[in-house]
Amino acid sequence: MFSYAITARAGRARAGVFSTPHGDLETPVFAPVGTQATVKTLTPAQLGELGASLILSNTYHLYLRPGDELVRDLGGLHEFMQWPGPLLTDSGGFQVFSLAQTRKIDDAGVTLKSNIDGSSHRFTPEKSIQIQENLGADIIMAFDECSDPNDHAYSKIAMERTHRWAERCLTTKKRNDQALFGIIQGGINPDLRAASAQFIASLPFPGIAIGGLSVGETKDEMHAMLDLVTPLLPESKLRYLMGVGTPEDLIDGIARGVDIFDCVLPTRLARHNAAFSPEGRLNLMNATFARDPRPIDETCKCYTCHKFSRAYLRHLIMAKESLAGTLLSIHNLHALIQLVKDIRLSIMDGTFESKIPAWRAQWEGNAERTSTTRV
Amino acid sequence: MFSYAITARAGRARAGVFSTPHGDLETPVFAPVGTQATVKTLTPAQLGELGASLILSNTYHLYLRPGDELVRDLGGLHEFMQWPGPLLTDSGGFQVFSLAQTRKIDDAGVTLKSNIDGSSHRFTPEKSIQIQENLGADIIMAFDECSDPNDHAYSKIAMERTHRWAERCLTTKKRNDQALFGIIQGGINPDLRAASAQFIASLPFPGIAIGGLSVGETKDEMHAMLDLVTPLLPESKLRYLMGVGTPEDLIDGIARGVDIFDCVLPTRLARHNAAFSPEGRLNLMNATFARDPRPIDETCKCYTCHKFSRAYLRHLIMAKESLAGTLLSIHNLHALIQLVKDIRLSIMDGTFESKIPAWRAQWEGNAERTSTTRV
Repeated sequence: MFSYAITARAGRARAGVFSTPHGDLETPVFAPVGTQATVKTLTPAQLGELGASLILSNTYHLYLRPGDELVRDLGGLHEFMQWPGPLLTDSGGFQVFSLAQTRKIDDAGVTLKSNIDGSSHRFTPEKSIQIQENLGADIIMAFDECSDPNDHAYSKIAMERTHRWAERCLTTKKRNDQALFGIIQGGINPDLRAASAQFIASLPFPGIAIGGLSVGETKDEMHAMLDLVTPLLPESKLRYLMGVGTPEDLIDGIARGVDIFDCVLPTRLARHNAAFSPEGRLNLMNATFARDPRPIDETCKCYTCHKFSRAYLRHLIMAKESLAGTLLSIHNLHALIQLVKDIRLSIMDGTFESKIPAWRAQWEGNAERTSTTRV
Repeated sequence: MFSYAITARAGRARAGVFSTPHGDLETPVFAPVGTQATVKTLTPAQLGELGASLILSNTYHLYLRPGDELVRDLGGLHEFMQWPGPLLTDSGGFQVFSLAQTRKIDDAGVTLKSNIDGSSHRFTPEKSIQIQENLGADIIMAFDECSDPNDHAYSKIAMERTHRWAERCLTTKKRNDQALFGIIQGGINPDLRAASAQFIASLPFPGIAIGGLSVGETKDEMHAMLDLVTPLLPESKLRYLMGVGTPEDLIDGIARGVDIFDCVLPTRLARHNAAFSPEGRLNLMNATFARDPRPIDETCKCYTCHKFSRAYLRHLIMAKESLAGTLLSIHNLHALIQLVKDIRLSIMDGTFESKIPAWRAQWEGNAERTSTTRV
């Protein structure tokens, strides 16, 4: 039901096709985040038009509201949110450690209080898989423990627990129409990352995620971990760098052999009136744009840039009209998705490495990343 | 540049075509309201898909923000908001009397303080036309004074001022690619309404609006005024009932010879989680809908009803996702626009009067209207 074929290589970068029950996914790919079964402010029709192929949704959020059993009873997540293409759910692990209150962790799992209503919940590897089977995404994730990347002693404990949990997730999984990916942890500690990559790669996962990055470490630290990890992974398995990134991160990640990315950054920036552009990140609330007849990016083919001036976008922002968020989300998502598609084509036609400097120059000034880019 | 042809009649109801510089407008027609140069939460592409043909925008709001000269300098309102079809702007009269603070009125015009920043402004008939010529809508409105419909003495003063202002608007108007409509006032006083209808009809306006209704009077009072006024108007001029209405109001208004309607109700209800339906007005936040797999209206052809369950819409509302407002706006606008299109077809094929009872039955329970349905 799942197969992954590499169609071209450029150094460590790969272009491929991952077949899923909801269609072929061309990789590398950037996945918009639809935390609560909706990519904020956009219809599925708009997502399709702007070029999205894979959408991520968050297990922790959907478990709490509206409930995974409700989603299952209404036909599963594809039917519920009306996304016809491939879907990915995370395991809830990241949110359990970043959002939930008063958590208590032991080898069996995590007890936590909901960030919505303070109610008490128990997450275990078995529970995470059960929720994700109820949701029914094409790609599901093993339950993992994130740790402070600089704390070697605790990173080792969390990594070893993540490994035991990965095996329990494999044992628990029942549905054969979902691809379960394992997650590498280990913080920014080379010895742990290497051990984690080797262990997770040894398990029968069709894809492997690199977790626990984009949580406050520097770009150099992230690159060092990618440089260490991806050579240890079998070519036949997909690589997914979770919660990344900026345009620059995508270029850097693909060059290091990553196939899948997701990040809330494009939609979150849109809600804060910011747009990716070759001039750097624009804040469209700026009075400079009040009479600017140009689109955000004259070279961009998205609906927003095809139709609307910066002056109109600024007007919508000043008038507190939610269409501003919609139009900026369309542009920011299209920008990242199209960048990854362009990179994919360049891998296939042999021009990737020669084009990297130009892409880097085009997108510099959009590189800022904070530890709050994940939900 | 403008012409109006009646293609069919059914009693006092008319079906026609009004030619404008931005295309032919089939009447009767319901116009969504795009107060601040945007129909809230929707792209122009979505408006086109849901069947909108005429969009109304508000002169008072656009004058204050972003400013009519800015809109003119950016190519006019069609270009600014990217609506390719016919546009209508009101005169600002209604908002001057309903929204602005500390107004002072005399025969020359009105001095008011902005509801946005308290700044002082002067509106006159000449100024209203100048602003509307800067905006550049296809249909523009004469500057009028609304009054408490029950106050006969003041309604007479306001009506007479509205008449003098109508003549000044005609004198001021320069652009020949805009159709200027006059406005009938007179509250709910039959003698004043009749006098106003006769006076406004005597001036060279291609269309005539019935103003000052939908401001708190009963449905019977509104119907009585329509029954009085429309027989006094020449068949050759369009009739526009401002700020109306509910599904029932549209049926009742068309039967009384009205051609154009606008109302914020569909989008305002959407923001309050409510949807028009043959079961009556639904509040989709209701827990009843938590697991309801049905669309809002199984007979509706809109994108929202074609794709999404009540359960999903309720989830979006509970999760405070703005997509809820978008999807409900699509449905509510489509419902009214499609109702008017269906009525138009029935006028053309001779079935209108026989179908009225069925339409009335289908839409009863959606009839509530408040004095806050206009902006």
